[in-house]
Amino acid sequence: MRLFVGFVALMLSQSLAFAQPLLTATAERMQSRIEALAAFGANPEGGVSRVAFTDADLAAREWLKAELRELGLSVRTDTAGNIIGRREGSQPGFPPIMFGSHIDSVPGGGNYDGQVGVVGALEVISVLNDADITTRHPLEFVSFTDEEGGLVGSRAMVGKLTQAGMDVVSNSGLVTRDGIARVGGDPERIAEAARSPESLRAFFELHIEQGGILEQKNLQIGVVEGIVGIQWWDITVSGVANHGGTTPMPQRVDALVSASELTLAINRIALELEGRQVATVGRIEAFPGAPNVVPGKVVMSLEVRDLSENKIWEVFRLIEAEAARIATARGTTISFTELDTASPPAPTDTETRDIIEAAAKRLGYSYQRMPSGAGHDAQDLAQITPTGMIFVPSKGGISHSPFEYTSPEDMARGASVLLQAILATDDQS
Amino acid sequence: MRLFVGFVALMLSQSLAFAQPLLTATAERMQSRIEALAAFGANPEGGVSRVAFTDADLAAREWLKAELRELGLSVRTDTAGNIIGRREGSQPGFPPIMFGSHIDSVPGGGNYDGQVGVVGALEVISVLNDADITTRHPLEFVSFTDEEGGLVGSRAMVGKLTQAGMDVVSNSGLVTRDGIARVGGDPERIAEAARSPESLRAFFELHIEQGGILEQKNLQIGVVEGIVGIQWWDITVSGVANHGGTTPMPQRVDALVSASELTLAINRIALELEGRQVATVGRIEAFPGAPNVVPGKVVMSLEVRDLSENKIWEVFRLIEAEAARIATARGTTISFTELDTASPPAPTDTETRDIIEAAAKRLGYSYQRMPSGAGHDAQDLAQITPTGMIFVPSKGGISHSPFEYTSPEDMARGASVLLQAILATDDQS
Repeated sequence: MRLFVGFVALMLSQSLAFAQPLLTATAERMQSRIEALAAFGANPEGGVSRVAFTDADLAAREWLKAELRELGLSVRTDTAGNIIGRREGSQPGFPPIMFGSHIDSVPGGGNYDGQVGVVGALEVISVLNDADITTRHPLEFVSFTDEEGGLVGSRAMVGKLTQAGMDVVSNSGLVTRDGIARVGGDPERIAEAARSPESLRAFFELHIEQGGILEQKNLQIGVVEGIVGIQWWDITVSGVANHGGTTPMPQRVDALVSASELTLAINRIALELEGRQVATVGRIEAFPGAPNVVPGKVVMSLEVRDLSENKIWEVFRLIEAEAARIATARGTTISFTELDTASPPAPTDTETRDIIEAAAKRLGYSYQRMPSGAGHDAQDLAQITPTGMIFVPSKGGISHSPFEYTSPEDMARGASVLLQAILATDDQS
Repeated sequence: MRLFVGFVALMLSQSLAFAQPLLTATAERMQSRIEALAAFGANPEGGVSRVAFTDADLAAREWLKAELRELGLSVRTDTAGNIIGRREGSQPGFPPIMFGSHIDSVPGGGNYDGQVGVVGALEVISVLNDADITTRHPLEFVSFTDEEGGLVGSRAMVGKLTQAGMDVVSNSGLVTRDGIARVGGDPERIAEAARSPESLRAFFELHIEQGGILEQKNLQIGVVEGIVGIQWWDITVSGVANHGGTTPMPQRVDALVSASELTLAINRIALELEGRQVATVGRIEAFPGAPNVVPGKVVMSLEVRDLSENKIWEVFRLIEAEAARIATARGTTISFTELDTASPPAPTDTETRDIIEAAAKRLGYSYQRMPSGAGHDAQDLAQITPTGMIFVPSKGGISHSPFEYTSPEDMARGASVLLQAILATDDQS
């Protein structure tokens, strides 16, 4: 029933013949699907805990596959557990245009991260079905496996998920390998999930911004210039642990005091340097960690993100220099360990960017170009096919929280841009 | 055999008749007992893990009771598990002079904290036995139960260990109540461990300094002016948790940045204010605590110590004012929760202080008056009887560590002062 809620609105707003309201998405139908999805893993705070490979994830996957079948798509699960729904095109041999996102959440997550992209992709199919349009290229809907656990499904699709990569314990508690098997994948044959560049025409992902820029500037659409690169370090500050009662203040070599000065410096450097770089200290631990012991050691995290790899290292070198100054002044030592979790900046395809921007303009929506500060499956797909990404506003910039919210109208505008970008791409060779 | 090692030295160094080498302790005998004790709960780093109520604690207690019996004392365990050895005096009805310390350690502790005081007290008995001296007052050796777990035994001795206080889980993992029963106490009759002021003439404790002041100033004896008061707070800094990738630097309300500024301010205030106050932030946690999330909340500890209650609160008010300034400037909130673990300053008895100082002077040792920055059983006893405390140097100021060290000569000087102070007190009414 849900599928036909927007039907009248659609009939009014579209025309395939001549000048033209453009085909657009229906806010009510999208909201209805968002609410249907919200039932799987619903948490008391009003969001979802739908961690990949859990029962809630499995149930939502079954719902999604049923939706895809109801829309007339042929549904399969690849060896990485990615759910793929295919709608054939009119031109034999044309590679498919792929679009989608993910339905898994962080523990204690909300109803919009990933889900808006999946529901938007379903909406695109619904609109095309309702309008009885057959594209020239086949269309492939995709819902990726375990995005929140490190882009697992999309990594497999670009051939970068190794056997060792599947040994990682996922957020569900299951080893990723076993999780993939649980959702219908085949970890032994993971390589078969990889797609060649020739097997795709383009990839599009609609997603909530997960930041507050669009809302603050009162804009409707973000045309994503790329996904920022991410570099992590562990910082270790070493002083001398000592008794908090018997060690006079001038004799202390307090690791936490040095760490505090460094935390302030990191914030100041990222804030004052020109550009959109961000630097975060999100985790900190003092050792031994008792209220009555002067900390002898502090371990803290450092994350730096930017669209430019050079900028990331410029920020880091400034931080390193400041750390050296603090260490000398306070008699501590400060060392940095680069972690093996870096993801390089992933710029989106310039032509695809233009297509998205033109679609937003044609639809009369306000927009701006912007980087994605968060990681997305699109950054993997960008390695093998022209990739574009569309952002819609996140209320209060909140994400990974039950308080995530994007209005039905904003979701529909995003899906309309997605649809028009797909149609424009389909019109090209 | 061990008991007679120092016999010849003693014979040479003492005279009861006239002018006079004073009776002094024997370094070799003390070192030998320190080494004997070190076997119980020996850890691989060369210290001991002899947490109260563990098997290692039990074994050391058995050794101690045998030593006391060998010295001719009548030995009992009170209902709090304190081991008490009594040596009768010549004057019927005179209240006993009590002295001792503790043999339990922190996890991963050393061989001197507490143990020097116990070995020093045994040495006093040995010297008096060897010299065949009977004091006018009875003498009571004491080894307190679970000092490191919050002065458990001495709290019971001053009637402040409640039934609820015994519900606390001790460092051994046992509930304190069960621990007390395990070492031969009787938690149901804990009140019987309490001593009245009339039942004691004085209390003395010899202890390592656990700080670096004596060593730094090249002094042999610390005449303790009192045990500093300790006040604990939990500090909660609240900002706004947000995505570390998508939240631009100027939009962040980072709780850890505010907490870092406050940590620096706390250190600066305690350092710059005239006096010997100390302030420590030893524990810190950022929430949610992920490297890629801007911390929305930080909880950290604050401890302030001083010999004056007024000074503690003066320091706290300065910290509070600085916190208010930081919170306003950074858009965060900072709140303080006073914890129910305060121990008020416990000044030692002025007359007893003079007695200790005179003993050090008579023995020709260098000394200074100083506060104890650490807590000790003596602070409890000070509530019911004139109490004095003697410090000996800690190498490098290190304590609660396998690297604790005090030389046999320093230990012997401390025990000699203890002995002379006891004899001087015995000479008074």
